[in-house]
Amino acid sequence: MLSSRIEHPVKFSEVDSLRVVWHGHYVRYFEDGREAFGKEHQLGYLDMYKHGLAVPLVDLQVNYKRILEYGDSAVIETTLILSPAAKLIFEYTIRSAMHGHIVCTGRSVQVFMNPHTKELQLTVPEFFEAWKKERNLS
Amino acid sequence: MLSSRIEHPVKFSEVDSLRVVWHGHYVRYFEDGREAFGKEHQLGYLDMYKHGLAVPLVDLQVNYKRILEYGDSAVIETTLILSPAAKLIFEYTIRSAMHGHIVCTGRSVQVFMNPHTKELQLTVPEFFEAWKKERNLS
Amino acid sequence: MLSSRIEHPVKFSEVDSLRVVWHGHYVRYFEDGREAFGKEHQLGYLDMYKHGLAVPLVDLQVNYKRILEYGDSAVIETTLILSPAAKLIFEYTIRSAMHGHIVCTGRSVQVFMNPHTKELQLTVPEFFEAWKKERNLS
Amino acid sequence: MLSSRIEHPVKFSEVDSLRVVWHGHYVRYFEDGREAFGKEHQLGYLDMYKHGLAVPLVDLQVNYKRILEYGDSAVIETTLILSPAAKLIFEYTIRSAMHGHIVCTGRSVQVFMNPHTKELQLTVPEFFEAWKKERNLS
Repeated sequence: MLSSRIEHPVKFSEVDSLRVVWHGHYVRYFEDGREAFGKEHQLGYLDMYKHGLAVPLVDLQVNYKRILEYGDSAVIETTLILSPAAKLIFEYTIRSAMHGHIVCTGRSVQVFMNPHTKELQLTVPEFFEAWKKERNLS
Repeated sequence: MLSSRIEHPVKFSEVDSLRVVWHGHYVRYFEDGREAFGKEHQLGYLDMYKHGLAVPLVDLQVNYKRILEYGDSAVIETTLILSPAAKLIFEYTIRSAMHGHIVCTGRSVQVFMNPHTKELQLTVPEFFEAWKKERNLS
Repeated sequence: MLSSRIEHPVKFSEVDSLRVVWHGHYVRYFEDGREAFGKEHQLGYLDMYKHGLAVPLVDLQVNYKRILEYGDSAVIETTLILSPAAKLIFEYTIRSAMHGHIVCTGRSVQVFMNPHTKELQLTVPEFFEAWKKERNLS
Repeated sequence: MLSSRIEHPVKFSEVDSLRVVWHGHYVRYFEDGREAFGKEHQLGYLDMYKHGLAVPLVDLQVNYKRILEYGDSAVIETTLILSPAAKLIFEYTIRSAMHGHIVCTGRSVQVFMNPHTKELQLTVPEFFEAWKKERNLS
């Protein structure tokens, strides 16, 4: 299982009138997690572009467990879930840096698309097969 | 079934480098839908506050079907899903104003919380029971 | 003087922990104002694209006068400021819909750019001269 | 002159359809800079709260010089500008991490406010005088 971890200090602009991170920002935290994963494991958006692919989301689930307050940081752990399908699946666990407990979990599914024609690619792209083979993931 | 419909012109700042609405903005579109529903049916955040309640999200699902482009508008339909639980459940359907097809669907679950103590209320609040009775919804 | 006016209900996600609109969102309110102006007067981003032009900001000023709270709406008035330079200058006045007073004013300067080469156009584009002439603005 | 420097990788969600950072995000970059300054020099929002103060913006200027692209990082330098007035003045310089050149500069003015009564404090708060004295800044 390949994963990546980053720490993101909660920003003033992310906190709502209840003084907790507004629920919509977790979607960005997930993308921050994916971008960090991509940088660490050479699977970023720019790596995709090089292979003529974009990876739009088709499915997103978020489970909010606890609040996260200003002054704390989000520890975002992003894990690639292996699948034989032509999909990119990630799971996320966000913890409070101060308290250690889980504040949010989630899961996203992305597909491979030609960014110019907007057509989906229904088979696993060759470069992604090769990427997995290099890491003994398939 | 009680629902509400609004139209939101896609904004330049909402469109990503693929020239389509960035996936994270749909979470805000859903909240726009809830706020419009709340205004139309007297079930808004400010109505909740008057009863000493906040309604944080605990669960969110988003299904992305099609892209939505700059120049188009999102037609956001928000429907209250009845449940005997102490929860507020909404379903969303977002359509392209130009083409009519569905671009995104979703579902959110909210719970009732005391905004000061952050304690959850595990029974259906009286005002919400009364609200439903007035509308013959329970 | 050509101007445009829209009303934008303050959203929950725009309000910070002091329960007032976070200062950064006014920049988006200004863009909402520009987009409404563009739609009303055929000077939108898509009209620009048709003429092979993008109009990036080079200068922005914001003056915050009063707070704007959740439950209220922003009334955004956007006025085109005439100039002989190859620039697009707008001034903004944002008022509280509830109280009528001014909450924020601002000014932006945009230049004309080729979106592909990113080169600036240093003379006033022909289509913009024609646009002004049609409206007796030059 | 007291200053603080952070590096912020440009995120996918911050890039607009021209594939450059959308102008409105720089206002958040400035706040990121202020928050980093506050953490480094004990002048953060939470330090303010402890002294019963909030520091809303009253004035903001942004000068956009160059574009910043996805794949690059913003190097945000935030400098406190000394003033005898009851104001908090910061200047910002944002550079491209890749190319070194300046992409954006700015300046913000904040005032001291009681967050409960929303009343402004017209004299320099004692704790801020003490903070400056400790650092030989006045």
